[in-house]
Amino acid sequence: MKFSNEDLTYIKRCFELADKGRGFVSPNPLVGSVIVKDGKVIGEGWHKKFGGAHAEVNAFASSNEETKGATLYCNLEPCCHTNKQTPPCVPVIISREISRVVISNLDPNPSVNGSGVKQLREAGIRVDTGILGDEGKEVNKFYFKYVIKKIPYITIKIAQSIDGKISTNRDIQTWLTGKDSVKYVHELREKYDAVLVGANTIKVDDPQLTVREVKGQDPIRIIIDGDLSISPHSKIIKMPGNEKTWIFTAENSNQEKIEQLEKLGIKIFQLPADKKKVDLGDMLKELGKENITSLLVEGGQQIFSQFISHGLFDEIIILQSPKILGQGISAFETNVLKKLKIEETERLGEDLKVVLIENQ
Amino acid sequence: MKFSNEDLTYIKRCFELADKGRGFVSPNPLVGSVIVKDGKVIGEGWHKKFGGAHAEVNAFASSNEETKGATLYCNLEPCCHTNKQTPPCVPVIISREISRVVISNLDPNPSVNGSGVKQLREAGIRVDTGILGDEGKEVNKFYFKYVIKKIPYITIKIAQSIDGKISTNRDIQTWLTGKDSVKYVHELREKYDAVLVGANTIKVDDPQLTVREVKGQDPIRIIIDGDLSISPHSKIIKMPGNEKTWIFTAENSNQEKIEQLEKLGIKIFQLPADKKKVDLGDMLKELGKENITSLLVEGGQQIFSQFISHGLFDEIIILQSPKILGQGISAFETNVLKKLKIEETERLGEDLKVVLIENQ
Repeated sequence: MKFSNEDLTYIKRCFELADKGRGFVSPNPLVGSVIVKDGKVIGEGWHKKFGGAHAEVNAFASSNEETKGATLYCNLEPCCHTNKQTPPCVPVIISREISRVVISNLDPNPSVNGSGVKQLREAGIRVDTGILGDEGKEVNKFYFKYVIKKIPYITIKIAQSIDGKISTNRDIQTWLTGKDSVKYVHELREKYDAVLVGANTIKVDDPQLTVREVKGQDPIRIIIDGDLSISPHSKIIKMPGNEKTWIFTAENSNQEKIEQLEKLGIKIFQLPADKKKVDLGDMLKELGKENITSLLVEGGQQIFSQFISHGLFDEIIILQSPKILGQGISAFETNVLKKLKIEETERLGEDLKVVLIENQ
Repeated sequence: MKFSNEDLTYIKRCFELADKGRGFVSPNPLVGSVIVKDGKVIGEGWHKKFGGAHAEVNAFASSNEETKGATLYCNLEPCCHTNKQTPPCVPVIISREISRVVISNLDPNPSVNGSGVKQLREAGIRVDTGILGDEGKEVNKFYFKYVIKKIPYITIKIAQSIDGKISTNRDIQTWLTGKDSVKYVHELREKYDAVLVGANTIKVDDPQLTVREVKGQDPIRIIIDGDLSISPHSKIIKMPGNEKTWIFTAENSNQEKIEQLEKLGIKIFQLPADKKKVDLGDMLKELGKENITSLLVEGGQQIFSQFISHGLFDEIIILQSPKILGQGISAFETNVLKKLKIEETERLGEDLKVVLIENQ
């Protein structure tokens, strides 16, 4: 066994510290770091803000104690590349005469990906990797997807009745889930860089797509609206903070309406479209360029169907309400057969949350 | 606190003993009994077989020790009525000079319902009722429904994809759930007096509806077939033990076919029907008369829809398979809004079981 119980304790602490940066560091990864000497924690730090100092540097800065011979814990491989805003961490670790570095995951970023570990070892430092590797990947699941694929991590979130209906009718808003589920959705939104709905959801529900039930930053709000049918009177257009509302529409959409919306403060993206259906692949690449590492897809049926039939998802969260609707609208209108795997189930008040991922 | 930890221990033992009679005592309740003297169990018994001795009598018979001054535990109120196959238990308890009786539930049977307790108290015996009353009702949920309503306890069992589809098409058998769920369904069947499907399920799936994956008795197999369209070559007609196959059809169904099926060993019930749809209320009363205390409704869509729209269920068990089907057949085709309550969730291998009851 390469890792001791102490190692496990300190790396878990790194995860905790890393998580404090959530909502502030994207598109960077969440990183926490702990420095331990003679069985005593002498420094802690985390990456607090995009563009700010890295976790390891903050851990060194947190203490005046001598670090020579200490062990440095870090959930992600320390960086060694220089084409970025902050100086690399590896030289700092070497200069502080750390004798051992323990990390969960190599940085999948092609500019690092093992080079950091290599440089540390070349400097005579013992490096142990892979401790709680799966947990480490879970903490940074958005980053791992984004840095490799250059498109966001995609979570499809569906609220449905126990018989699989998302509403009674395409044109009527149906409230299905209870207050614990609503709160959970706000917690989710707070974790994602962006949320996405289709134009019909705006028309029927007129949602704000903000974080209200919990404290936290509002995500970017993305609307797919191929023929730009959105009403300029929608809440999402008129609300304060509407610079966070982005509309993706077809390249030949009405130029006058585009200008009208832009004047109101909305950001418009024009993309190639087939029969006014915006190409999702193009949209996701565009989001990648805009540093959106995570996307929460909130509906409705047409949007869910397009994402599922193109296999564009990393995770599906289904909030099941204990109601039977009988006839009504299902989440997916396409004829697909997807085999998934249940990752997690949890009771949310009266409702049931089921998290699924692709069955590999 | 009326009940001690010892009381809880012994009444739980009564539940365990009671459960040993499952599959053999219907339409009688499941009853277990423990006799305790000076902190020591001196007798145990349960109701083993319909028509056989009651739990209390078996507990007395299990031991030669002096029962004077002992405490008798029993999950259900001892019987006092005489219009039945076995002599009443109350006089036996009195004659054995028991000093205290502890029971979970009064017997809801109108012929008992408190009279047993009253007679015991009149004989000077201390009687404490209500210990783990909810658990006691759960053990005998079939009996409690049946003895009051004279129709069976009804459980609707649905296997569906995570997006709420029971099959891809009305005419094609769709295997959704995994082997743990299949085994669970066989365990369920073993617990019910009867299982029920519609004629279309027989046509499409040609099922046997027997208990195969676990040891146990086969239930009665009920087919609702308003216009008697069933093929005489169906497994359920031709299999050994087909005297357990009962068909409910319209009163004006083809008499020749009825005779043909009866000759093959099948029991046919003819009932009033509206447009060849057998009246479910009439059917359930008929089942009550046949001593069917519990019914597992296994499909398909038309059957589920009829039961749900008439509110004819006590419990719904949904086995969710982690698959997305997209287009397909939902469990319910009717326009209903039923608010339910999730009673239990359990992972069954790759699948998820959700048990729901009416939201009271």
